[in-house]
Amino acid sequence: MSKHQGFHIRTNWAFLALAVSFLSASKATIAQTATADVYTEARANADEQAKEWLARGIPGLALAVAVGGKVVYSEGFGYADLEERVPVWPTTKFRIGSISKPLTATALMQLVEAGKLDLDAPVQKYVPSFPDKGAPITVRMVAGHIAGLRHYQDDEFHIQKHYDNVLDGLKIFENDPLVSPPGTEFHYSSYGFNLLSAVIESASGEKFLDYMEGHVFDAIGLAHTAADQNARIIEERSRFYEKEKKDGTLENAPYVDNSYKWAGGGFLSTSEDLVRFGSAMLRPGVLKAATLGEMFTPQRTKSGKATEYGIGWFVHKSKSGKLIYEHSGGAVGGTSQLIIYPESYVVVALVTNFSDGGWERSEVETVAEKFATVPR
Amino acid sequence: MSKHQGFHIRTNWAFLALAVSFLSASKATIAQTATADVYTEARANADEQAKEWLARGIPGLALAVAVGGKVVYSEGFGYADLEERVPVWPTTKFRIGSISKPLTATALMQLVEAGKLDLDAPVQKYVPSFPDKGAPITVRMVAGHIAGLRHYQDDEFHIQKHYDNVLDGLKIFENDPLVSPPGTEFHYSSYGFNLLSAVIESASGEKFLDYMEGHVFDAIGLAHTAADQNARIIEERSRFYEKEKKDGTLENAPYVDNSYKWAGGGFLSTSEDLVRFGSAMLRPGVLKAATLGEMFTPQRTKSGKATEYGIGWFVHKSKSGKLIYEHSGGAVGGTSQLIIYPESYVVVALVTNFSDGGWERSEVETVAEKFATVPR
Amino acid sequence: MSKHQGFHIRTNWAFLALAVSFLSASKATIAQTATADVYTEARANADEQAKEWLARGIPGLALAVAVGGKVVYSEGFGYADLEERVPVWPTTKFRIGSISKPLTATALMQLVEAGKLDLDAPVQKYVPSFPDKGAPITVRMVAGHIAGLRHYQDDEFHIQKHYDNVLDGLKIFENDPLVSPPGTEFHYSSYGFNLLSAVIESASGEKFLDYMEGHVFDAIGLAHTAADQNARIIEERSRFYEKEKKDGTLENAPYVDNSYKWAGGGFLSTSEDLVRFGSAMLRPGVLKAATLGEMFTPQRTKSGKATEYGIGWFVHKSKSGKLIYEHSGGAVGGTSQLIIYPESYVVVALVTNFSDGGWERSEVETVAEKFATVPR
Amino acid sequence: MSKHQGFHIRTNWAFLALAVSFLSASKATIAQTATADVYTEARANADEQAKEWLARGIPGLALAVAVGGKVVYSEGFGYADLEERVPVWPTTKFRIGSISKPLTATALMQLVEAGKLDLDAPVQKYVPSFPDKGAPITVRMVAGHIAGLRHYQDDEFHIQKHYDNVLDGLKIFENDPLVSPPGTEFHYSSYGFNLLSAVIESASGEKFLDYMEGHVFDAIGLAHTAADQNARIIEERSRFYEKEKKDGTLENAPYVDNSYKWAGGGFLSTSEDLVRFGSAMLRPGVLKAATLGEMFTPQRTKSGKATEYGIGWFVHKSKSGKLIYEHSGGAVGGTSQLIIYPESYVVVALVTNFSDGGWERSEVETVAEKFATVPR
Repeated sequence: MSKHQGFHIRTNWAFLALAVSFLSASKATIAQTATADVYTEARANADEQAKEWLARGIPGLALAVAVGGKVVYSEGFGYADLEERVPVWPTTKFRIGSISKPLTATALMQLVEAGKLDLDAPVQKYVPSFPDKGAPITVRMVAGHIAGLRHYQDDEFHIQKHYDNVLDGLKIFENDPLVSPPGTEFHYSSYGFNLLSAVIESASGEKFLDYMEGHVFDAIGLAHTAADQNARIIEERSRFYEKEKKDGTLENAPYVDNSYKWAGGGFLSTSEDLVRFGSAMLRPGVLKAATLGEMFTPQRTKSGKATEYGIGWFVHKSKSGKLIYEHSGGAVGGTSQLIIYPESYVVVALVTNFSDGGWERSEVETVAEKFATVPR
Repeated sequence: MSKHQGFHIRTNWAFLALAVSFLSASKATIAQTATADVYTEARANADEQAKEWLARGIPGLALAVAVGGKVVYSEGFGYADLEERVPVWPTTKFRIGSISKPLTATALMQLVEAGKLDLDAPVQKYVPSFPDKGAPITVRMVAGHIAGLRHYQDDEFHIQKHYDNVLDGLKIFENDPLVSPPGTEFHYSSYGFNLLSAVIESASGEKFLDYMEGHVFDAIGLAHTAADQNARIIEERSRFYEKEKKDGTLENAPYVDNSYKWAGGGFLSTSEDLVRFGSAMLRPGVLKAATLGEMFTPQRTKSGKATEYGIGWFVHKSKSGKLIYEHSGGAVGGTSQLIIYPESYVVVALVTNFSDGGWERSEVETVAEKFATVPR
Repeated sequence: MSKHQGFHIRTNWAFLALAVSFLSASKATIAQTATADVYTEARANADEQAKEWLARGIPGLALAVAVGGKVVYSEGFGYADLEERVPVWPTTKFRIGSISKPLTATALMQLVEAGKLDLDAPVQKYVPSFPDKGAPITVRMVAGHIAGLRHYQDDEFHIQKHYDNVLDGLKIFENDPLVSPPGTEFHYSSYGFNLLSAVIESASGEKFLDYMEGHVFDAIGLAHTAADQNARIIEERSRFYEKEKKDGTLENAPYVDNSYKWAGGGFLSTSEDLVRFGSAMLRPGVLKAATLGEMFTPQRTKSGKATEYGIGWFVHKSKSGKLIYEHSGGAVGGTSQLIIYPESYVVVALVTNFSDGGWERSEVETVAEKFATVPR
Repeated sequence: MSKHQGFHIRTNWAFLALAVSFLSASKATIAQTATADVYTEARANADEQAKEWLARGIPGLALAVAVGGKVVYSEGFGYADLEERVPVWPTTKFRIGSISKPLTATALMQLVEAGKLDLDAPVQKYVPSFPDKGAPITVRMVAGHIAGLRHYQDDEFHIQKHYDNVLDGLKIFENDPLVSPPGTEFHYSSYGFNLLSAVIESASGEKFLDYMEGHVFDAIGLAHTAADQNARIIEERSRFYEKEKKDGTLENAPYVDNSYKWAGGGFLSTSEDLVRFGSAMLRPGVLKAATLGEMFTPQRTKSGKATEYGIGWFVHKSKSGKLIYEHSGGAVGGTSQLIIYPESYVVVALVTNFSDGGWERSEVETVAEKFATVPR
C-alpha cells in the first residue's frame, strides 16, 4: 500500500467534478469487448507484432499504448514465469532498467519547481561526500550525461551485493577518474543517476525510495511501479530470463541485486504504468509546462554541440522522422522501451523479461504510429 | 476493448492539468509498500475479517474500500477457481447479482439528464409491447420496486436458456398479473429492472449492453465490469461455487445463463470497480448533484409511506446508525455487497464466488467504518 | 482419492522386487533434463508438431508417447483455461469423448475373464428393461457397432440434462427402431456403449462408475482419469472451447452434461494416462493374452464381411501401412486420439480442448512413428 | 527428460505381466473421489495437520503417505510462489536439504553391490586429491558421520558461488583439521556427503549428477527429483521463503547456489517422490535385502558405542516408540522430513518452502501412524 495521507483526500475532492470524465484514461486494464472502434486495426497490428517478438524467443512481454492520456491498448503475451507457467498479464511487473532514469528525473524537476534544488549547483552542494573532480560538476550535467562520469565497467552489471543506502552505492565509482572534463562530452552513465538519487535525498530530506513512492509513483498513479527489492514479496513480479551463452537455450538470468542503482536502473513497472507516466509528461500537471520544456530540450556541451538528451530523456526523431522523447532500458532479464510522441499525444511502452533483445525500437515506433495516424 | 471514440480525447485534455492529482484515486491495485499510514489498522482489520469469511467456507472473495474517491484498500482472498487453484486477485471478476441494479440506474438517470427519458411516463411509452396492466406503471415506480411487478418464482433463478435480446427476456413475466396495484406497495423485483433495460434501449436508441459499456462503464472507468456472457472469453472471470445440498461439501454451482437479466442481476465486476463506481456516485460528475439527490431519496407509495429504496439503491442506516446507500447482490455462485457512506465519503465492496452467504452486511459495515473513523 | 482397499497391499508386495525396474515407466511427468538420448530427435519433432497444431487455433493440447510401456515423451502446450490463462500441464484433464469406449471395453473383458459376462448372450440377459428388437442383439455385437443401434441424432450431442443413473440414459434411444438388422452392418453408435455400461453394472453388481474407478482406472494406474461430473470439483479439468459459428473467433464451448454417456464418451483423461492405458493393452496383465487377441480382432458381420472394429477398438493400418489399434474421440470442447502400434510397442495420445479439430490422425501417426523407427 | 536408453525397454517387458497390479502404487497424484475407504479418517487427520502448519506461517507445503508401496495420501497446501500466487500441487518441487543424503547413499550402495566400491577403503582410493588426515578415513565412516569431518561453519549455508564440479566444492573444507579422530565420534557433516559424491564419480566413472539421474532417480521412478540448478528452467520449482529477521514478516529467502553440496543437501523433490523413494527402500529391488540391512544398521564408533545413523539414514524410535528410519532436511527456504516405518510399511514425507520450521517431527510421525494403525 502506498502512503495515503488523509490530507490528500480533501484536495482530491476539489477536482472530482472535473476529473470524472478523465477517469477512463486511467484504467488498469482495458475492458474486453467485441466492439470495433477507430483503433481496431492498430490494435491488431500491435498483437501481431507482439506475437512476432515472442516467436523470436522472448519469454514474456507486455505492450501498451495511450493516446491523449487514455490507455487504448494494453496486453500481455507469453510467460512471466516459465518454471511455474505463469502468464503475463497487463499487471505483471518487469525490470525496466534505464527507464528508471526519466522517473528519477521527474523527482528532480519536482524539487526544482519546489525551489529545493538548483540544477546548476555543483553536486557537492547536496552530496558533500562526493569527491571533488577538479572542475565543477553540476546536477544538470549529471542529468544530461555530460558530467564525464563513467558507466558500468567489467561485471558491475551483475552485482549481487545489497546496498542499504544510496550513498554506499556511490562508492563503486565515485573515486574513479572522469572519462572527460565536465560539460564537454556526452558519456551515458547510469552511475550519474545514482548520484542524482543522493542529490534528491539531500534536497528533499527524504530517503530516495520514499520520495519516489510518495511523490512520483503515487502522484502519477503508478500503482504497479516499485523498487526491485529482492527480499520483499512483490506481487506479480516477473521472473527473468536470458539465453544460455553457448547453446542459446533459455535459462534463468543470473541473480543480481539492483540496490546499487535504483535511480539509474532499479525499478520494476508495467507497460501500462509506463504509458500512464509518459502521458503525465505530455501536459502540465505533475510538472509545469516550463519544466517539461526544459526537461525535453537536448542539452549542449560547453562547446555548444547539441546532445540528444535532455534531463532524463532522449530527444530525437523516430525512424519515420517524427519527434520523440524516449528511453530504453536494459536490465539482467529485461529490456524495455518507452516512447512519447509529443505531436500526436501517443505514448507506447514495451517491457520484456529477457536480457537478449529480440525487438527493435523502430518496431515499437511502428506499433505506436499506427495509433497516431488514425484519422480523427 | 471498450469503444474509445476519438472525440473523447480532445475533451479529456481540457481536464488533464486538474485531473492529475486525482489519478491516484483510480489505481487498479494499490501498490504494496511497508509504509505505515493512517489506515494501517483499518486494513489489518479488513484482512482479518476477510480471512474469517474464508474460514467459514467461502472459496474466494475480494474486498475493497475507497475514502474520498481514493482506493485505500483492495485485496483478494482464496481461490477464483478451485479446479485450477487460481487465486483471487483484485482484478478477478465476480457475479455481482443485484448490484447490477444501481449500475442500470446510473444509465437511467443519464438519460433523464439528457432529456431523453421521463421518469414519470408510463413504461409503455418506451416499451409499447409491454402489456397494459390497467393502471399506469411509470418508469420511476419500476426503478423503486413499487410498480407491483413480480420477482423470480419457481426455478427461474436457474434459467439456462440464452436470450439474444432484452425484449425476449421480458416474456418470462410480462403477462403475469401484478402482485399489487402500481404505486401502492414495495415488492422487490429483478424483472422490473429488466424492463428498465428495455426502457433504456428505447430512450437511448442503443442496445442496452452497448449503452452500459459505452456510457456507464467507460465513463466511470470500470474496466473490469462486463455482462456475464457465457460464450465470450472474459478474462479473470471467477468460477462459481455452492454447497452440495445434502453433505455441505463445496461443488461447482449449476450452469445458468444470465442473459435474461443483465439489468437486474447479470453483470460481473470487481470489488475495486464497485468502490470506484460508488465513489463516482458520491459527488457530481457522472451525474449532477440534483440527480444524485433524487436517486438517493427513498420513494414513497401513493399513500405517502416511505420505502427504503430510491432509484436503484437502498437508503437506510447501518447497524451503527450511519446513513448508507447500499445494494447487496445474490447470484448463482456469488453474493456481494456495496455500501456508500455519504457522510464520511467511505465506500466498501465485497464480492464472493459462493451462493451460500457466509458473511453479514453488518460485518461489511464494520470493515468500512474502521476506515471512516480514522482521525484526520 | 481412489478406493485403496487394504487387501490390495499385501498382494502388491509379492511383486515389488520385480516391479521396481518397471516403475520408471509409470512416471506422471518425465523429468526434464538436458541429456540427449535416442529419442531426442523424435521429441523435437513432437514439439514442432504440437506447436503447429497450436498455431492452427487449438487453445490447448497435450501429447504423450510411450515405448515398450515407458513414457518417453509427455508435454502440454497452450492454455487449459483462456479466461484465467492457466497453462496446460501433462496432468491437465481433457474430455476424451469416444476414447471412453476402449476404457469401457476393458471393463467388459475383465468381466468376461471373470466368468460373469457372456459376450454372446443377448443384452436383455443383463438389461431386461432393454426393449426386444425382434432379433437377438448380443453384447459382442453392441461392442463392435454391428447391433444396428442408432447413434446421436439432432442436437443430442449437446444434452444439458443430468442423468443420475445409466438406465435412465438409455431412454434417449432404446425405443427407436434399429438402423439395420442385428449383426448385418457396421453402424457406429455411442449409445451402444451406454447400453454396455448397463450390462457391466448388471454383470458386476456395481455402479458403472464405481466399477470403472475401482477395477479399471485404479488397476492400470490411471490417476488422472475420471467421469466428467459437472458438479464435482475435479482438479486440473481443462475448460472447453470452440469456434464461434460465424466469425471463427474462439469462444467457450456450450454447456453440456455428459452423464447420459459415460461409457460411450463421458470420461476425462490426460495424454499420459492414455498412453499408460494403451501400454497396458499391449501385453498380458490387466487382461489375458487371449482376451487381448479377441478384443483387437475386427468383428465380422453375419455375411462374413470384416469390419475395422474389434471390441472397443478400431483395428486397421496407419497411413504408412503399419498395423494400429486406435480410437479417436470427439466431445464438446475436445477432440482426441489414441493409437497403439502393436508391432513396435509404441503408443501415442493427443488430447485437446477444442471442438473443431485442427489436427489429422496421420499427423499423430507421424509423431508416433518417429519414436518407433529409432534404431535400437 | 531423463535418459531413457533403448536397452532398458526390453528388460522392462519381462516384468510387465507381473508389474501391472503394482502400477497403481506409483500414481503421481491420487485420483480424487468421494469414495470412503479404510484411510478416510487418517487422510482427514493429515489435512487437519497440514492446515495447522499453514496457520503457523509456513507459506507452502506438501505431505504424502504411502502404505505397502502404494501412495494413499498426497496433497499440496498453500502457495509455491507468493509473488505470483501459484498454489502448491503434489508435483511442486521443494528444496529437500539433507534428505539428499539418503538418495546419495542409495547410489553408494548400488556401487558396492556392483563391486565397484569398497566401503572400508580409505576415501583417497577414490579421491586421491583429498588430503591425508593422518589416520585412515573410510567411505563407511564418512557415510555414517564418524569420520571427524567438519560441518558448515560461519555463513557457508548461504554460499552464492557456483561450483562447476564436485571436486571444486571439496575445497571449502578439505584442508581444515578434523573435529575428532576418524571413527571415534559422531559429528554430522554435510561436507562428508559432498566427499561421497566425489567417491561415487570415481567409482562409477560418471559425473555425480548424471549417475544420480540415470541410476537412482530413473530406477526408482522419481520423475520430480532433480538437482537444484539455478540457471536451468526447472518446472514447478517452488520459490523459497523465510521470516524477516526483525519483524517476523515473510520475505523471499536469500539467494544461494547449492552446487557446492548436491550430495549433502542440494536436491529438489516432492513429498510424493520421497515416499516413493522410501517405499523402494523398504523391500529388496533397487538394493538387495542384505544391502538394505547394512544401510539401516546404526554404525558404531571404534569404541563400540552405537550411533543412531547407518549409511545415509537415522535409525531410532518415533516418539511413540516405533522403529523408524528417517532423515530431516534443512535448506535456505525449505525444511523437510522423510520417515520410514519398516514394521508397518508406512512412509511419510513432508516438504515445505520455509526456512523457519513451523512443524515438529513428532507431528509428522502422528500423521503417519494414523495410517499404520488402520485395522486390516
